[in-house]
Amino acid sequence: MDEFALIRRYFQPLQQPRQGTAEESVSVGIGDDCAVLNVPEGRQLVVSIDTLVEGTHFLADTPPEQLAWRLLGACVSDLAAMGATPSWLTLALTLPHADEAWVSAFSAALSEATQLYRIRLVGGDTTRGPLTLTAQVHGFVKTDTALLRSNAQIGDLICVTGTLGDSRAGLETLLTKSSSNTVVEYLRQRFYRPQPRISTGQLISAYASACIDISDGLLGDIQHIMDQSEVGAQINPEALPLSAEIQHFTDDKTAREWALSGGEDFELCFTVPPEQWLSLQAHLQNHDVQVTPVGAICEAKGLQLFSQGEWCAVAANGYKHF
Amino acid sequence: MDEFALIRRYFQPLQQPRQGTAEESVSVGIGDDCAVLNVPEGRQLVVSIDTLVEGTHFLADTPPEQLAWRLLGACVSDLAAMGATPSWLTLALTLPHADEAWVSAFSAALSEATQLYRIRLVGGDTTRGPLTLTAQVHGFVKTDTALLRSNAQIGDLICVTGTLGDSRAGLETLLTKSSSNTVVEYLRQRFYRPQPRISTGQLISAYASACIDISDGLLGDIQHIMDQSEVGAQINPEALPLSAEIQHFTDDKTAREWALSGGEDFELCFTVPPEQWLSLQAHLQNHDVQVTPVGAICEAKGLQLFSQGEWCAVAANGYKHF
Repeated sequence: MDEFALIRRYFQPLQQPRQGTAEESVSVGIGDDCAVLNVPEGRQLVVSIDTLVEGTHFLADTPPEQLAWRLLGACVSDLAAMGATPSWLTLALTLPHADEAWVSAFSAALSEATQLYRIRLVGGDTTRGPLTLTAQVHGFVKTDTALLRSNAQIGDLICVTGTLGDSRAGLETLLTKSSSNTVVEYLRQRFYRPQPRISTGQLISAYASACIDISDGLLGDIQHIMDQSEVGAQINPEALPLSAEIQHFTDDKTAREWALSGGEDFELCFTVPPEQWLSLQAHLQNHDVQVTPVGAICEAKGLQLFSQGEWCAVAANGYKHF
Repeated sequence: MDEFALIRRYFQPLQQPRQGTAEESVSVGIGDDCAVLNVPEGRQLVVSIDTLVEGTHFLADTPPEQLAWRLLGACVSDLAAMGATPSWLTLALTLPHADEAWVSAFSAALSEATQLYRIRLVGGDTTRGPLTLTAQVHGFVKTDTALLRSNAQIGDLICVTGTLGDSRAGLETLLTKSSSNTVVEYLRQRFYRPQPRISTGQLISAYASACIDISDGLLGDIQHIMDQSEVGAQINPEALPLSAEIQHFTDDKTAREWALSGGEDFELCFTVPPEQWLSLQAHLQNHDVQVTPVGAICEAKGLQLFSQGEWCAVAANGYKHF
């Protein structure tokens, strides 16, 4: 089956309007030289592009459905970190061969994920080569309300959503070929199916001063907020939220290391002025999301961790791509 | 040098406002989770994503500056085919290693190309793996004026811009290691540095009924217009515009085969209602662009070529990616 036939068969159905999306936002979808799109009045467009490469970001023979979830989850998480509403997806797939079974499984999972995240496929490119998946996601924010990395202020609380380290633990279960049980399955799902914090990003955007999603690991990602806001940060590893599952799977020290440095949790790390904290807490009570203060923004440049009763300067050691 | 340092050093300078672009269209560029962008009032957004893979689309050891020109040229050509004005670029680079010399040469050429096309880099991702380059381009059209593939009407003239087959001839000079001379260099530049027809696309958009850029080869690309407009087409190979250089490099039969089926010329193929033809011709006289009628849209489905005094049905044989 040639490229055009593959695309028609498996990807055109994905451009169906997603429930809850603004259908009028797509004038022309897949099938022309470009997609033609409409950004609603009073909204800014936010975009992010991400690549997953076999051997670098995932093991060979990872099931295609898991790749679809991880690719889209990671990308949409960037939209969540801006407080944005997802709108459109474009996809560049490089495949070793025109494997219909692979494309079929991938597109079925992608269809599920696009429906869950309410994002619509509007274009793409399919090429032959070593397995490489690139997605660009697009979303909207009300003009001048995007949550940036650059506005953290001295004295702000540093908060994180959900629990940290689970994705790294999930990878460990794969590397060590742990036998399946409910704990192991939970951690693997956290690795394979990141749940971007879309609604939480929108919810906190009226309170937070800065935000980033945790893709490289908390220590690496807080560094971006520090760099761009020109501030320092203190984080208390004892305060990091850990799941019951990670605590069951490994010892406390390892779990906290993974929570600090393990990548791809796709939770949000954000800063909140202390005077906003109570209002945010009240607002969060009606929502099913855990938010945990783990530190504070400080004047002294650099990052400090609380350890054995004192604050110690550390080097950021987020995951590096090279 | 790690990923973040590479990006900062070589790609951040590229997000400088391009001369002639609407500077206010970029609120946040490279360096946050997403870029934050503004689509002007009364404009639609058009987007296209394209990938080049080493070994599939280019030979190993192709100089990085040539890759930058081909990648961007091919992408921007999709905008040209919509009659759009380029605005923003995002880039996903997968590189075998953090080769500063490569990144430096690539980004220098990309900087030249983005200035020429007046498009601004607003985001990207850099990953490690087999050399793969993906670009998404964004542009604007006045609302409801995008040139589509789907509106060709029976009786419309089929026209092409510039000359065809040169890019395929340029590839041949590389494959056969032809010694350099002015003809060979011209053809190689046509292969390495496609010149997307941005202003021509905008100029014809008031006259043309359908348009596509010639990336897969004329026979393959006219097929897309036929499919989406639900019409047939007749093309006269004798009418195809050939450069003096291709005629010097090879025999007439080969040159016309390359003009019909060779990909990556990145000229435009468009259809014009006959009653618009004279006005378009008049309009074109003040512009430095060659437009040549090469056939017509007809009712009978399928593609016919004029050969030895009669119209013969042919199968489209554009370049297939798999």
